[in-house]
Amino acid sequence: MSNLGFFYNDKKEYTITNMRPRRPLKNFLWNEQFIMILDHFGFGESFRYINPEERRFVVNDGEAGRLIYIKDRETGEFYDANRNYANKSFDKYECNVGIGYQQIVSEYKGIETKFTLAAPTEGFAELWKIEVKNNSDTTRKIDLIPYCRPSVNVTSHLAYGHADYEKKLDGLYFSHDAYNISHNCVGVYMKASMSPASYDITDINFKGIYNSWAEPQALYNESLSNKGSSFDSTYCGAMQFALDILSGEQKTIYVVLGMCTDLDDAVNLSDMYLSDGFFEQSIAAVKNDADAMDNLFVLESPDEYINIMTNIWLKRQISLGKTWGRVYNKGFRDIMQDTAGLAAFDGKMAREKIKVCLATQRPNGNPMRSFAPIDRDPYYDGAVWTPETVLAYINETGDLTVLDDDVPYFESDEHDSVFEHMYRGLRFLLDNRGEHNMVLWGGGDWNDSINNAGNQLKGESAWLSIATVKAIKEFCRICEIIGGKDELINKLTKEREILKSAVLEHAFEGDQFTYGINDWGEKVGSHESYQAKTYLNSQTWAVLAEMLDNDGLNKIMQTVEDKLKCDFGYVQCAPAYSEKDLHIGRMAYFIPGGYENGSVYNHGVAFKIAADCMLGKADTAYESLKMICYDNPKNLNSGVEPYVVTNMFFGPQEKYRPGFSFYAWFTGAAGWVYRDITEFILGVKGEYTGLKINPCMPSAWNNIFVSRVYRGATYNITYKRTGSYKLTVDGKVISGNIAPIFPEGSNHTVVCEF
Amino acid sequence: MSNLGFFYNDKKEYTITNMRPRRPLKNFLWNEQFIMILDHFGFGESFRYINPEERRFVVNDGEAGRLIYIKDRETGEFYDANRNYANKSFDKYECNVGIGYQQIVSEYKGIETKFTLAAPTEGFAELWKIEVKNNSDTTRKIDLIPYCRPSVNVTSHLAYGHADYEKKLDGLYFSHDAYNISHNCVGVYMKASMSPASYDITDINFKGIYNSWAEPQALYNESLSNKGSSFDSTYCGAMQFALDILSGEQKTIYVVLGMCTDLDDAVNLSDMYLSDGFFEQSIAAVKNDADAMDNLFVLESPDEYINIMTNIWLKRQISLGKTWGRVYNKGFRDIMQDTAGLAAFDGKMAREKIKVCLATQRPNGNPMRSFAPIDRDPYYDGAVWTPETVLAYINETGDLTVLDDDVPYFESDEHDSVFEHMYRGLRFLLDNRGEHNMVLWGGGDWNDSINNAGNQLKGESAWLSIATVKAIKEFCRICEIIGGKDELINKLTKEREILKSAVLEHAFEGDQFTYGINDWGEKVGSHESYQAKTYLNSQTWAVLAEMLDNDGLNKIMQTVEDKLKCDFGYVQCAPAYSEKDLHIGRMAYFIPGGYENGSVYNHGVAFKIAADCMLGKADTAYESLKMICYDNPKNLNSGVEPYVVTNMFFGPQEKYRPGFSFYAWFTGAAGWVYRDITEFILGVKGEYTGLKINPCMPSAWNNIFVSRVYRGATYNITYKRTGSYKLTVDGKVISGNIAPIFPEGSNHTVVCEF
Repeated sequence: MSNLGFFYNDKKEYTITNMRPRRPLKNFLWNEQFIMILDHFGFGESFRYINPEERRFVVNDGEAGRLIYIKDRETGEFYDANRNYANKSFDKYECNVGIGYQQIVSEYKGIETKFTLAAPTEGFAELWKIEVKNNSDTTRKIDLIPYCRPSVNVTSHLAYGHADYEKKLDGLYFSHDAYNISHNCVGVYMKASMSPASYDITDINFKGIYNSWAEPQALYNESLSNKGSSFDSTYCGAMQFALDILSGEQKTIYVVLGMCTDLDDAVNLSDMYLSDGFFEQSIAAVKNDADAMDNLFVLESPDEYINIMTNIWLKRQISLGKTWGRVYNKGFRDIMQDTAGLAAFDGKMAREKIKVCLATQRPNGNPMRSFAPIDRDPYYDGAVWTPETVLAYINETGDLTVLDDDVPYFESDEHDSVFEHMYRGLRFLLDNRGEHNMVLWGGGDWNDSINNAGNQLKGESAWLSIATVKAIKEFCRICEIIGGKDELINKLTKEREILKSAVLEHAFEGDQFTYGINDWGEKVGSHESYQAKTYLNSQTWAVLAEMLDNDGLNKIMQTVEDKLKCDFGYVQCAPAYSEKDLHIGRMAYFIPGGYENGSVYNHGVAFKIAADCMLGKADTAYESLKMICYDNPKNLNSGVEPYVVTNMFFGPQEKYRPGFSFYAWFTGAAGWVYRDITEFILGVKGEYTGLKINPCMPSAWNNIFVSRVYRGATYNITYKRTGSYKLTVDGKVISGNIAPIFPEGSNHTVVCEF
Repeated sequence: MSNLGFFYNDKKEYTITNMRPRRPLKNFLWNEQFIMILDHFGFGESFRYINPEERRFVVNDGEAGRLIYIKDRETGEFYDANRNYANKSFDKYECNVGIGYQQIVSEYKGIETKFTLAAPTEGFAELWKIEVKNNSDTTRKIDLIPYCRPSVNVTSHLAYGHADYEKKLDGLYFSHDAYNISHNCVGVYMKASMSPASYDITDINFKGIYNSWAEPQALYNESLSNKGSSFDSTYCGAMQFALDILSGEQKTIYVVLGMCTDLDDAVNLSDMYLSDGFFEQSIAAVKNDADAMDNLFVLESPDEYINIMTNIWLKRQISLGKTWGRVYNKGFRDIMQDTAGLAAFDGKMAREKIKVCLATQRPNGNPMRSFAPIDRDPYYDGAVWTPETVLAYINETGDLTVLDDDVPYFESDEHDSVFEHMYRGLRFLLDNRGEHNMVLWGGGDWNDSINNAGNQLKGESAWLSIATVKAIKEFCRICEIIGGKDELINKLTKEREILKSAVLEHAFEGDQFTYGINDWGEKVGSHESYQAKTYLNSQTWAVLAEMLDNDGLNKIMQTVEDKLKCDFGYVQCAPAYSEKDLHIGRMAYFIPGGYENGSVYNHGVAFKIAADCMLGKADTAYESLKMICYDNPKNLNSGVEPYVVTNMFFGPQEKYRPGFSFYAWFTGAAGWVYRDITEFILGVKGEYTGLKINPCMPSAWNNIFVSRVYRGATYNITYKRTGSYKLTVDGKVISGNIAPIFPEGSNHTVVCEF
C-alpha cells in the first residue's frame, strides 16, 4: 500500500519500516491523567494533566527525550539504538506501533535492541522495557545505557533544582521543590530493574556542552561520571548497565521514569512499577479494553483498509479524543461530538462526558468554547451540539434518566437538569437573532477562524442557523421519546420553521447557501463575495438539516462537486482568501490552503460524506471517504500515519505542499468518519426503539458482513444486494428498517437485502 | 592569565582562542530598542523591545541561529565556519569580542572565513559581514552559504506564515501577517549585497528533518532548492553564493537580517543597511561612543586587569544595564542603581532614567518592583534607592533643576516633582512600621527571594530599616544643597534617629545585625536562627549607613570575615538554608549556594568592598575585589567571561560546581564594582562643590594615575604615598579633600598625597 510499512497481528499493530518518513509518525499512550505523545523514534512529550491551565511534564524534549545507547565495551563503538544519530548501518531498524505500546527495534553488528514504551493504566510514569539480544556467535560485552531528558524545572527558577543518585531509591532522583507551586509533583525519578554500574544526571557531564547526541562525551570513558547536579538546564538521566551476553542470549531491563511528590514516593512507586509482570500487564490491560471495544462493531468489507480503520484504529483515535480532547485543549464542541460517537462504545462514559461538558455552559445557555484551558471567547455555536449527542446516548442505551441529571452552570450557583440545559441552549440560539432573523454569529461558530464577522452582534451565521434547525429537530425527537411534551414540540417546530424561512430568504442563492452576513452587512461565502464564494459546511449541513426538498439539496451538493473537489478531498471554501479581510477574522489571514481557509478539513469532509448518504449517493460518499484516507493513490505521500485520520490536508492553493497532512490523531474527523462508515454507509444506527439498518452501500461493496453490539445483544448482519430493501431478523421478515431490541448477551442473525 | 584567550587592541577587544570554554561566552550588541545576545559562535537571540510585555525576535534559536557554511565545489566538502558542527580540523578558530561587534574567524584547507556581526545604531536588524579569503596557492571555487533560523511565527498559529524569495527584494521574505496582533513587525527579511545563486527558506529542504547541522541535506546538491514554504515551524534563510577566489584574494559579502512591516519596508530598509560603508560606520559609531566614555575615567595602576575593567569593560557592562536593565526585565531598583553609576558618564541620560523610574512609583510612595514586564509584587524597598541616585546626579552635574521635574505616579492622575517623589517614598518607608518600630518587610526588599517573611505586614526588615536610615541621610544632603529646608531636615533627622534606635534595639546582636523579624515574630539571620545565622548585607549596609561607631562597625565586619568568606568572595548568608522554610520564602527553597541562598552574590560583595573602604581597610577591600574578578587564581575556571563581572558564583555549599558563574553581564554588580574602584578605592567622587579625592589605596598600589572628567574639566591625578594626606591642584595646596570646579574643557594637574 505504501513505502512506510505494514499492518500485522490481526491489523492491530503497524510496523513502520521507513524510519525517515516525510514527517515523524505519532502514536499515543495514555491513561485518564497521563499521556505520552511519541513519534516513531520514541521521542516526544509526556505529561500529567493537573488542572485546566497546567500540565506537569515528565519529558518535554522532542530531540532527545529518550535514547537507548549501546556500547561495545571491547571495541568502544557506541550508538543509540532508537534514533541512530550516529548514522550506523543498522541491519534492522523499525518501529512497531501498538495499541498501548510503542516499540523500536534495531540490530547492528549482531546486537538486537528492542525498546518498548508503555503507560500504566493509572499514575504518572513512563514504563520502558529494553531487551538486548546477542545474535552473533560470540559472547559480547555490552554497555546498555538508557538515557532520558526529564523535565525537572517546573518553574523558571533553576535555583530550585537538584538531582542526584539516591541510595534509598537505587536510582536517579530529580527535585524541583519550589516555593509556592500549585501541585505536589515536584520530583521526577528514574529507576531500573537492576542497579546501575554508573550514572549521569546532567548533560554537562553526559552529552557535553559542545558534543552531539551522536557522540556524547561520557561514552568515551569506561563509566559515567557518577556526579549530581544543581541549578541546571540540562538535567538528564543516564544509567550504565554492563552486560555480558552469551551468543543467542537476551537480557531485559525495565526502567520507570515517573513523577512523584518526594523521594519516599519515588521509592514506593518505582517498586510497584518495576514489580514482576507489571509492564506486560499494563499493555495487556489496554489491549483487553481495545479488543472489547473492537468487538462492538466488526466490519468485513472488500476494502481491507476501511475494515482496519473501522474495526480497530478509528476506535483507538476516538478513545484518545474521548479522554484528551485535542490533547492540548478540551473544547465543548469537540468533546460533545466525540461523545456522540462514544455512546455506541461506552454509554456510562458518554453520560459522564455529557455532564462534564454541560457544566461549562454559561447560565445564559451559551457554552464555553474550551474548558481546558478556559477559552472565554464568545463563540456562539456550543449549544447546537448537545441535542444530537444526548439523543445518540438515549438511542444507544435506552436510558432516559440522563435527562434528569442535575448539572451546574459555569461559574454560577444555578444548576438544572440535562434536559433544561439543552433547552436553555436552544433558547440562547433562538433568542439571539439578527436583523434578518437568523442566529447571531457572535465570536464564531464551528468555523473557529471566522472570529471577527459577528463580534458587534449584528452579523448572522447562516450555517449556525441551519445547525440550529437541525438541533431543534433532534431536541423535539427527544421530547417525542419522553412524551407529554406536545406543547413544547409545537412551539419549537413553529420557531424552527420561522428560522428556516429566514435562512431561505437571506442565505439561499439557488445553487448554494451562503455562510452568513457579517457585522458590516456583507454576505460571506456568496456569489457576491470577491473571494471564498462557496463554503462546504453550509451545503452539507443544509442536507443534514433537510433545508430543501431532494432536488434542491442535490443541486447544492452538485455545487460542492463543481467548486470544492480536489484530488484529496473537498476544501472548506473556494477560492481561499488570498487577501486579508478583517470583516472575516483570522481565517482570512491564514495562508490559502491552510485550516479553514481552503484546506481539505476532514471534519467538513466527514459531514459531506454523511450528506451524500442522506441523498442516497453511495458511490460519491465512498469515493469521498477514500479520498481522505491514507491510501488515496493520488496522495500517497501525504505524511499522515497510515492508522489514523488527519485533521486536514493542505488545500490545492497551498503552493509548496498541497495534500500534506501536518498532524493527525486529534481531530473531530475521527468520530465523524467512523459514523460515516457505520451509520451512514452501512446504515447501522441505534434508535430508541431498536437497531436501524438502512445502508447506502457503494456499488463496489457486495457480500458485506457486520457484527454490531446494541444494548448488549449482538446483531450479525449480512448484506445482500437484491435491488429491493428487506430486513430479516432471525429468519423473520421485519416491517420497516429497525431490528428489535433483544436481551443482553443474545446473538441474532440479520439479513439486510437492499 | 588563563587558557581562554587574551585582550588586544588597547585592551578594547578580547580574542577567545578556546572555542570550547566551560560555558558559552557572551557578548551583547544593541541599540536603544534592539539587542543581540551572542555567544562566541555567534549564536543567540536578537529581539526588539516592543512594550513592557512583548518582544519581537529576529532570531530565537540558540543552536543554529546563524551558520556560515563553506563548500568546496570541487571536492564537495563542506562545513560551517563559525560553529564547526562537522568537527573539521580547523587551522585557525577564534572569536574576537569587540565593543559593538562580534567576529568569528576560522581557517580550513586554505580558506579563511571571518563572520562579523553588528547592530545598527537604530532600527531592528542584524548586520553581517562575511569575508572569505583564499590563503591557498590555487584559485578556489567556493560556495558561501550564510544560513539563519529567523523567528517568523509571532503567534502560535503557523497558518499565518509564508516565506519565499521575492524578486522585488532580491532576497528572502518571511511573513507572519497575523490577525489582531499588537505591532506591525510581521515580516522578517534576509538580503545580501549580491544576488544569491540559489536559496532555501525551510529546513524541510535545507537541513532536512532527519539530518543534523553538521550535514544539511541541501549541501549534497549543486544548488539549494529554490522553494518557498508556508505553515512551517522550521523556516530558515539560506543563500548560496558561488565564488571563484584567486589565490590571496578576499571576497566580502554583507547580509542584513531584519524585521519589517511589509515587503516594501524590507526593500527600503535593506537598501539602507546594505549601502556602502553602513556596516563599518555602525561599528565605528559604537566605538566612538565607547571611546568617549572610556576617556571620562582612565586609571593607570599596577593591576593591568583592574585597569582594563575600569577603563573599558565595566563601562560597557554598565551601558548595557542602562538601556536594557537585566535584558529580560527592567526593575526600578536595578535601573535606579545603574543610573547612580551612569551619572558620571552621561548626566542627560541619567536624568531621563530617573524620571522613567519614578513614573513607576505608586501614589502611596512605593515603586513597582519591575516595570518591563510589570511586576506588581509588593516589594517594599524601591524608595530607598532614589535619594542616592538623585544626589549622585546633582553632585556630578551641579544641576538642581532635576528636582523640579514633574513626573506622574504609576497608573494615577497624580503627579509631582522629583523632590516630592523622593519624599513620598521616604514617607512610605517611615509610615509603614511594625511592632518593633522597624520598617515593614512587605513582599521583599533588596533580597527578592525573602518574599514570604512580611506579606502579612507584620514582619520588619532590619536591612530595609538600615537602608532607610542611609536614604534619609542622602535626602537631607539634597535638602542642604538646595537650602531653606531646615525644618524638614530636623524632622527627618529625628525620625531617622528613632528608626536607628529601633534597629539597634531589635536587630543588633553585638557582633552582627540580624536581617529582620518575620511575620511570625521569628528573627531572621540571627544567632537564634537554626540556619542562615549571618547575612552579609545587614553588616555592610550598617557600615554604609554608619549605624555604629567605628569600633562597633569593625566588629560586625570581622563577623563577615569570620563567617562569610570563601575562596571566591563573600556569601550572601551562612550557613545557607538547607531546610525549606515558608517563613522566609523562595530563598529557603533554592539550593544551598544558589542566588541569595548562600552564593557569592557579587552585588553584595560590592557593597562589602565599599564598606571596607569606609572603614579604611584598603587591603581587605582590594583583596575582596580581586576575589570576584575573573583572574582570581583560586577560581580561574569559574566560567565567567574575562571582560565582565558575573552576577554570582555558586557558593561553597553547592556540591558539584562551587565557584561557577552561571551567567554574567546583567547584574547590578557592574555599577557597584565600578564605584568601588573609582569612588571608594581611588576615592574620586563628584560632590556638589567639587571633585572629592579621598583614596583608600591598597598597599600594593603605588604610582597610580587617574584622569577623570568632572563637569567637563579634566583632572589628571597623580597619587603619591607619603603617609599624610595633601591635595595639590595646579600647584596649589588645597585645604580639605575637594578639588574645585573648573571651566569645561580645561585641564588640571592634581597631586594627591596620602
